[in-house]
Amino acid sequence: MILHGYWRSGASYRVRIALNLKGLGYDLSAHDLRKGEQKTADYLALNPQGMVPALQDGDLIVTQSPAILEWLEETHPDPALLPTAANERAAVRAMAALIGCDIHPLNNLRVLKALRSNFDADQATVDAWAAGWIAPGFDALEALIVRHGGAWCFGDAPTLADCYLIPQLYSARRFNMDLSPWPRLLAIEATAQAHPAFASAHPDRQPDADA
Amino acid sequence: MILHGYWRSGASYRVRIALNLKGLGYDLSAHDLRKGEQKTADYLALNPQGMVPALQDGDLIVTQSPAILEWLEETHPDPALLPTAANERAAVRAMAALIGCDIHPLNNLRVLKALRSNFDADQATVDAWAAGWIAPGFDALEALIVRHGGAWCFGDAPTLADCYLIPQLYSARRFNMDLSPWPRLLAIEATAQAHPAFASAHPDRQPDADA
Repeated sequence: MILHGYWRSGASYRVRIALNLKGLGYDLSAHDLRKGEQKTADYLALNPQGMVPALQDGDLIVTQSPAILEWLEETHPDPALLPTAANERAAVRAMAALIGCDIHPLNNLRVLKALRSNFDADQATVDAWAAGWIAPGFDALEALIVRHGGAWCFGDAPTLADCYLIPQLYSARRFNMDLSPWPRLLAIEATAQAHPAFASAHPDRQPDADA
Repeated sequence: MILHGYWRSGASYRVRIALNLKGLGYDLSAHDLRKGEQKTADYLALNPQGMVPALQDGDLIVTQSPAILEWLEETHPDPALLPTAANERAAVRAMAALIGCDIHPLNNLRVLKALRSNFDADQATVDAWAAGWIAPGFDALEALIVRHGGAWCFGDAPTLADCYLIPQLYSARRFNMDLSPWPRLLAIEATAQAHPAFASAHPDRQPDADA
């Protein structure tokens, strides 16, 4: 398989974690978002949206990280990243979607660029904007983890929710947020840092990362 | 079941469509987002995020529309809103996520309020912001529908992708967008307008809608 990604893309980071957890090898096709390499004609022919990540498997191209993660779960079910019971699967997916729909879309690169160009936002304003969406999302996540979590977001094994959480924590740190209000999130992050699948997916360890 | 929703919430609209397509009755618990009714203590005890929709089924509360839709699909599989083959399921989910992650989060009420309060954005600026995310998303969707679509986003039966598309088109109209660049999306909208499950889910037909 080929993962079309970018080292600092949070959505690419999610997919790297899942591939690693499932023990699936892949080749990286890096697209530097700062240079607009996700908008080349060749890549647009694969993915008309011109965004990363996309996962290529022979003639198949799967776009959008939520769809990629569900596809990986269906085609490579072991180890499972969703529980078995529908009610529990819903709890994991809700935590994933809270991050994937209500936090990350508001702090990704294209949106921050738009704030700068449309509203002359400076770095402090951009950081405050990002934190303004991350903080209430993390508050809700912390409450959901009290309800459902253990060593990980849901119970004592990593799930799709953790594939979303760890990249979002990385992103929050880039906006210089104080994360001490969310001790359960930090505990999960510490667990993840010691887990090879998460550690090797870290942006700094990717071949396309800045030196 | 009880659907916690709001007539103009695009994510609530998605869930109404899916419930109708599956022939599932429900009671509405309306939360007027303009009055902050999604932040009451009683509702926060159910859904710590204080957002709609949430679906309540006995003691179970499912939050986040992507999780609700997948839960409905797993617990009430007939009629199916996802194809059978993993590759095809991925295509439907990718279209859904394109809307759910890359369009809708940038034009929902709380974000537009933040643009007004943080950047003194006026209505024209807000409309342009929303259109600036909707247009490239619709461009990509139009291309994906060429690849996968028929009478609906994927083939000739409604799927989860259509549950996302129709509310997003409603939203685009509220921002006064000219939708003529996307004839395939408009053709699907016309098909949906004639389908009872979609027609009865329309915001204007909800009991909590403005007169």
